[in-house]
Amino acid sequence: MPKISQKGQQMPESPIRKLVPYAEIAKKKGHKVYHLNIGQPDIKTPEVALNAIKNNDIKILEYSHSAGFESYRTKLSAYYKTHGLPIEVADIIITTGGSEALLFAMGSTMDTDDEIIIPEPFYANYNGFSTASGVKVVPVISTIDEGFALPPISAFEKLITPKTKAILICNPGNPTGYLYSKEEIYQLAEIVKKHDLFLIADEVYREFIYDGDKHFSVMNVPGIEENAIMIDSVSKRYSMCGARIGCIVSKNKEVMSTAMKFAQARLSPPTYAQIASEAALDTPQSYFDDVINEYKERRDTLISELNKIEGVKVATPKGAFYCIAKLPVKSADDFAKWLLETYDNNGETVMVAPAAGFYSTPNVGLDEIRIAYVLKKEDLIRSVAILKDALIKYKEK
Amino acid sequence: MPKISQKGQQMPESPIRKLVPYAEIAKKKGHKVYHLNIGQPDIKTPEVALNAIKNNDIKILEYSHSAGFESYRTKLSAYYKTHGLPIEVADIIITTGGSEALLFAMGSTMDTDDEIIIPEPFYANYNGFSTASGVKVVPVISTIDEGFALPPISAFEKLITPKTKAILICNPGNPTGYLYSKEEIYQLAEIVKKHDLFLIADEVYREFIYDGDKHFSVMNVPGIEENAIMIDSVSKRYSMCGARIGCIVSKNKEVMSTAMKFAQARLSPPTYAQIASEAALDTPQSYFDDVINEYKERRDTLISELNKIEGVKVATPKGAFYCIAKLPVKSADDFAKWLLETYDNNGETVMVAPAAGFYSTPNVGLDEIRIAYVLKKEDLIRSVAILKDALIKYKEK
Repeated sequence: MPKISQKGQQMPESPIRKLVPYAEIAKKKGHKVYHLNIGQPDIKTPEVALNAIKNNDIKILEYSHSAGFESYRTKLSAYYKTHGLPIEVADIIITTGGSEALLFAMGSTMDTDDEIIIPEPFYANYNGFSTASGVKVVPVISTIDEGFALPPISAFEKLITPKTKAILICNPGNPTGYLYSKEEIYQLAEIVKKHDLFLIADEVYREFIYDGDKHFSVMNVPGIEENAIMIDSVSKRYSMCGARIGCIVSKNKEVMSTAMKFAQARLSPPTYAQIASEAALDTPQSYFDDVINEYKERRDTLISELNKIEGVKVATPKGAFYCIAKLPVKSADDFAKWLLETYDNNGETVMVAPAAGFYSTPNVGLDEIRIAYVLKKEDLIRSVAILKDALIKYKEK
Repeated sequence: MPKISQKGQQMPESPIRKLVPYAEIAKKKGHKVYHLNIGQPDIKTPEVALNAIKNNDIKILEYSHSAGFESYRTKLSAYYKTHGLPIEVADIIITTGGSEALLFAMGSTMDTDDEIIIPEPFYANYNGFSTASGVKVVPVISTIDEGFALPPISAFEKLITPKTKAILICNPGNPTGYLYSKEEIYQLAEIVKKHDLFLIADEVYREFIYDGDKHFSVMNVPGIEENAIMIDSVSKRYSMCGARIGCIVSKNKEVMSTAMKFAQARLSPPTYAQIASEAALDTPQSYFDDVINEYKERRDTLISELNKIEGVKVATPKGAFYCIAKLPVKSADDFAKWLLETYDNNGETVMVAPAAGFYSTPNVGLDEIRIAYVLKKEDLIRSVAILKDALIKYKEK
């Protein structure tokens, strides 16, 4: 019998999706499950995007250009410029989600056994993309006590070897909600310039910033035009996760022509989804104002409710729609399974993502969970009430 | 300045798309270009698929299950069974095009520096996917003189090393149009069983068979359930190339659970395209009858016209919608560029794919081109007339 690859064996299970079979147990029992585990917003997709699909007049569903529709890239460049990002059409390749953009970025910049430094906890699928690309993740730890701020430069420099090719950040952060300051981005810029590294910035949550803070993009740092690679996506901005449209952005011509070869091999990004994404650029500002207000209220509700539970610690997220919560349990993984498999509160329970999967260092974050605040306030309040009760029952068992 | 990866440097340019800048020169001159270079059919997508998109009532464009809609997989399994393929729902993971299915198959079965044997000429992007996966392509040559039949078993066995993990075939073949016989598939089955290899079969052109021949799938060979991996796609079947929906199919549970980890990392295949693909399963048989008749006539027209040109040699394709033609030129690459950059015939020219890019052995197929017969008959006749005239002019220059 033929054997699967070592790479395949090493591919991590998604901490977001690995508990799905347990959720199915809960659902089979007739329990209602509040999904705090996955960043699937309940926010409506802008009508302008949905209508573009309903009104399309395609007769032959053709391949698009491998870099995506020229019309979409042109409008997207204008969108970025309006938002202060000096991004030209030639700097953009449309991808199948931010996921593919990350794969193209890794493939274009790293070979087997090369190393990428990532502040942890980080978006769990960075592990999967790294494994798929044969790349070794070197984590630099950020802590809940520091609110998940950028680790000191010295912590990065200690980890740089001749194999190090890139630093990857998520800003604002999934799963931490941390927003890097301009000063922190400049510090990273200094390191990548000094050591000739790429700085890959996953900025898919750019619009989700609360408290009047400003997002500072790697595309806005003078002097690192050859180092900076931005990853973007329509998934969260327009609540269009199912479109699977993102892009890779860089001023580095060599990176872009290399990424283009990866793009040509897979022919093109999905056509319908590009139509929806192009149309979504006409979404009125009022839509975003409402969405950001809604998320800010959800965040405030969630954090204030969580803080009422004894033994729970949480760092207030400044952006995105996630937070890491430290629980008074030994194994958040066991607790999360128990919530689905065994526990219920009047026929209801919650599904959370155990945070250990967001760390690459073993045995770190074992008592932490990631919560996505993508549900409406009443549901968040109810979810935290369930969590509070469950923590008591779990301790007693 | 940071350096791109060796992998990125090695990524081949697509022979189908690399001449696009030359086509743009022709178009700037106002020349009409007949596209024989790319397998983008001019056939209309089934209305049942297009209407499903126009009538969708999505309010939130959500992620789907990482393996694709359960409803789609269920209907797809029934479709395969109707067509004599014993494929269960659990044997299917929906992917973003056949492209992603190939990447998942390679990632799940092969590590860096492992070897995959592929009869050449082969679909050019197999090179790209192999490079992206760190896998080494070992070509086994098939020739125009043998009509691109399967090379003898001894030719395969000579190439097998401890690093060999899989044999990859395309059946019917792009770019050759060759249809493997049941006997040939059984021969391959013997080799993979004997040497514990995977047999990856790209069967995306399964429906495009002429002359009353029967397609024989690797899923129909008893005893290689653990070895066989089928790649499929809706792109050609329903003229839905832009959907970017395919699937990876296998009875090997370990392969499927490994592929599922790759699938989870990228979250989900595109939602709109899945809706269209699911609806497309209701396409009436009359649609396919018309399409196959049309392609058969196109093939007959193309081959008969090509055979009228002195010095041109072509193997009659039995399936798919491509053929390889040997031209009386030294460099088909130079000729193809010249066709676009310099030549015109009453303001018209043709774009072809130089076939060298479909070989992995250097300096083979230099005088061959691949022609996709995806245009209507009048256009094919005109295209071959242009080719005939161009060959004379090219010789004279």
